[in-house]
Amino acid sequence: MDLKTLYAPVARDLADVETNFNELADYWKAEFPELHDMLRHILVGGKILRPALTFMAGRCIDGQSKKILNMATANELMHIATLVHDDAIDRADTRRGRLTVNKLWGTEKAILLGDFLFARASEFAASTDNLRVTKLFSQTLGIIAVGELRQARDIYSSDQGMEKYLQRIAGKTAALLKMSAESGAILAGGNEAQIEALAGYGYNLGMAFQIVDDILDFIGTEAELGKPVGSDLRQGTVTLPALLLIQKHPSDNPVSDFLAGKDREGNIARAIKLIKSEGLIEESYKLAESFSGKAISLLEGLPDNACRRGLSALADYLVRRRN
Amino acid sequence: MDLKTLYAPVARDLADVETNFNELADYWKAEFPELHDMLRHILVGGKILRPALTFMAGRCIDGQSKKILNMATANELMHIATLVHDDAIDRADTRRGRLTVNKLWGTEKAILLGDFLFARASEFAASTDNLRVTKLFSQTLGIIAVGELRQARDIYSSDQGMEKYLQRIAGKTAALLKMSAESGAILAGGNEAQIEALAGYGYNLGMAFQIVDDILDFIGTEAELGKPVGSDLRQGTVTLPALLLIQKHPSDNPVSDFLAGKDREGNIARAIKLIKSEGLIEESYKLAESFSGKAISLLEGLPDNACRRGLSALADYLVRRRN
Repeated sequence: MDLKTLYAPVARDLADVETNFNELADYWKAEFPELHDMLRHILVGGKILRPALTFMAGRCIDGQSKKILNMATANELMHIATLVHDDAIDRADTRRGRLTVNKLWGTEKAILLGDFLFARASEFAASTDNLRVTKLFSQTLGIIAVGELRQARDIYSSDQGMEKYLQRIAGKTAALLKMSAESGAILAGGNEAQIEALAGYGYNLGMAFQIVDDILDFIGTEAELGKPVGSDLRQGTVTLPALLLIQKHPSDNPVSDFLAGKDREGNIARAIKLIKSEGLIEESYKLAESFSGKAISLLEGLPDNACRRGLSALADYLVRRRN
Repeated sequence: MDLKTLYAPVARDLADVETNFNELADYWKAEFPELHDMLRHILVGGKILRPALTFMAGRCIDGQSKKILNMATANELMHIATLVHDDAIDRADTRRGRLTVNKLWGTEKAILLGDFLFARASEFAASTDNLRVTKLFSQTLGIIAVGELRQARDIYSSDQGMEKYLQRIAGKTAALLKMSAESGAILAGGNEAQIEALAGYGYNLGMAFQIVDDILDFIGTEAELGKPVGSDLRQGTVTLPALLLIQKHPSDNPVSDFLAGKDREGNIARAIKLIKSEGLIEESYKLAESFSGKAISLLEGLPDNACRRGLSALADYLVRRRN
């Protein structure tokens, strides 16, 4: 099973999102070529998970509609906007193996391009003519921003805990996956129980997704990750595997030593090794699986059809993926 | 005449915006004190011109409403969000004589705080339950971002012209003043002619406002401006007075020499002196006055009442102001 197979039922819908993206970029081709180039560069690739979720959730309830397409486009644009700002903040040189906007055009233009993408995202959301999803969109943008602010606050802090970690990833990742599924359900005309089930599915899928991301950052290879192993910790962000190591050895562990500025390279290497040898990867996967299990169980209220099986398979896939 | 007098008819409404701002900050007081502090720091002061316009435009048509308050709050929040990002981009240390967010908390948090403020602004806009102003809000955010991107593109460029200048200030300033007045008119239930008149007033007021800002940057004192004289040019942005100097002496002028990197301090000083001695301040004021005159003339379709006279006086004041 791969993503392409999982997305097959909504492949044509996803191609429509690509068409929207092409039009968005080409609009500026003659009049503002640099903006066109930036958009062309950034509006490609990735897992396109958010629009896939919106379409798949919509399919669970009804057929397709122009409104769902607009919202799916909005959800992916919001995701891309946050990536552009994240990379500018982290001063990252590459993402998915390609140069970042800040690397190619500078931090200043990356900030402004992110703002532009937020604007276009909110225009697509408003173009659904549905006040409920428009409000959901604004609220979610706020939740993501607070999640990112919490992460910036907690950087290089050894005052960490499970609660803070879960709160951060709920904001920075799960909120948008929740909206992606929820907005599809709303626009397809789902009833409140269906909307709630799909919102809950998206939220729990998002929690599992981010935990797996945080695991892969420790166990992936540089080739798979497109960035150095242990990147999060290198940047001072304590994710689940590192957090479990602190909890297991509160008084003596390489993560706390790293955060305190001691022998950074040595402690990163020791942390990666210990996290693997002490079974903390397995423990982290258990938490990811409990979230994906919750996501799948929430689908039970929906009719047992191809769509529901597709969302269930997607949750399985996202926990097993290697990149 | 001062702003306080001009705002007197909507003073209580403006106090309600302040209450919204206080609630927005205080929400985070216990749970996320740093966000609370950032919001407390940034949500004070300024001309509060955008909400004043929204309320005054609304008054021209009808009484007051909760919806107009929400939109006025959204308009000011969007303005503040753009300032936070602008200061991060310009690496500015002070604004209005106070330290900037990026100076106090770093560029990273300034980017995220700006995103948070955009989110809250769009939530307030959506809370009007009015799809037309919600869409207008998203479109305006996009126009502002493109305006800022154009300014970033044109920095240190000697390929300048009146058209590019007017396009830039239309995006970065006039679009938001247009929305501020237009949204007040829409939410007060104005007819299309009234909405169009007030939108046009806001747009032309915005053009005049920005031109005067650009003039004051050359003729103000450092004490009045809260920043060094000629700051725009120092940062490579060619505004109207400098543009007129290039046009008057295409082959030999200190602005082009400055942009080409020659004797920067000397050429800034020469540019400021020449702009004043060659009558380019007066010429710039003429353009500002033609925009403010257009703004006032667009009010003619509205009833000749206190509100209309207030908007007319505001346009006069904004051209005459010294800071």
